[in-house]
Amino acid sequence: MIPSPLGEGPVEAVLPAGVLAVLPSLKCFVVEEVRTARRFLSAAGLKGHIQELEFHTLNEHTQPQEVEALSGLFDGGRNVGLISEAGLPAVADPGAALVALCHRHGIKVVPLTGPSSLMLALMASGLNGQSFAFAGYIPAKTDERKAAIRRLEKRSLSENQTQILIETPYRNDSLLADLVSTLDPRTRLCVALNITCPDEFIQTRTAAQWKKQLPVLGKRPCVFIFLA
Amino acid sequence: MIPSPLGEGPVEAVLPAGVLAVLPSLKCFVVEEVRTARRFLSAAGLKGHIQELEFHTLNEHTQPQEVEALSGLFDGGRNVGLISEAGLPAVADPGAALVALCHRHGIKVVPLTGPSSLMLALMASGLNGQSFAFAGYIPAKTDERKAAIRRLEKRSLSENQTQILIETPYRNDSLLADLVSTLDPRTRLCVALNITCPDEFIQTRTAAQWKKQLPVLGKRPCVFIFLA
Repeated sequence: MIPSPLGEGPVEAVLPAGVLAVLPSLKCFVVEEVRTARRFLSAAGLKGHIQELEFHTLNEHTQPQEVEALSGLFDGGRNVGLISEAGLPAVADPGAALVALCHRHGIKVVPLTGPSSLMLALMASGLNGQSFAFAGYIPAKTDERKAAIRRLEKRSLSENQTQILIETPYRNDSLLADLVSTLDPRTRLCVALNITCPDEFIQTRTAAQWKKQLPVLGKRPCVFIFLA
Repeated sequence: MIPSPLGEGPVEAVLPAGVLAVLPSLKCFVVEEVRTARRFLSAAGLKGHIQELEFHTLNEHTQPQEVEALSGLFDGGRNVGLISEAGLPAVADPGAALVALCHRHGIKVVPLTGPSSLMLALMASGLNGQSFAFAGYIPAKTDERKAAIRRLEKRSLSENQTQILIETPYRNDSLLADLVSTLDPRTRLCVALNITCPDEFIQTRTAAQWKKQLPVLGKRPCVFIFLA
């Protein structure tokens, strides 16, 4: 399980040398998006060898029977690399289906260290890291979204549980607007934008403080974290 | 925010070169345990320079007014490193109090990439990585513990939410016994032991399968993950 960078910049900043050293030994990869994976592997030291590699796709469109067919890749004890679009494979992406298959077939699974936007944002938020939940994507329509925010805030308050959210980047600004207008003014909200990138922005303020001055997030990857 | 290894082995296997390159520029550290931090920094390339460094402790015994006093460390714009006992600082440890202070005082917080036992275990579990919760430590007494397991399993089932637990290592085996005797036999349970170490063991099976053959975990760090 091979993590990949969250954005631009040298791979050595976010991937251990020990992980980069594993890559040349792999000839077969299951990836969320072939083009991104090729670009990453090229930057990670496999430039000039990409044509020799075998790529298979596993994304939100992959059917269960297609996942099952991937078990043949491991025939003869071959090592297969799993790579997601960005960050840790099988967290907030469909890669877990391949891992579940490995456990069913007795194939050894080895998770390698790399950047997790969720954990980097949580660390830097200053909010409770001893109890937290990742809700993934919440509904995009305003009414349903506000209801989901209220439900998560209620749980956050009653259980002292930090809530982590992400959204498709083009909806970042509308999610932030709904968060600050829905959350209790005293609830602390962390906005973590483009983590590990040169323009990284991580700030925790109360909903009331954000409301006074809303930043423009644009279409950059963003993690939202709050604690009531 | 400087991650540290989860166990024995070369630091280059779990920390990016870009993170190791930051360390020599820091002279002041806030750490969960001074002895562990010294040993880590020595292994990370600061051997021979440890005596020149300044260490302050932040752990579960630190009082709020003592945390507030740490704000003086940043006077004159000095950089301060935060290091936990193992893994990511401020996740599943008391470091978040210092980060919250930084946000209140307008001090920039920079999270660096390293190993997260929770995320490495989640990746490798094959369980749902698109919705999950970390409950931290649950009660140690059998009755209360079983009630907590039942409550988390109920939520897991109704929300398709993966549940992540840890325990003080000497209680690993009793927690595993309570998990397999309390969970629905069909619930999938991942046991992730000594992640990133030479004896790493990560297996996902149903509670019924585990019950037939319970492994002895001993006092090694372990993450438990289940999905009903």
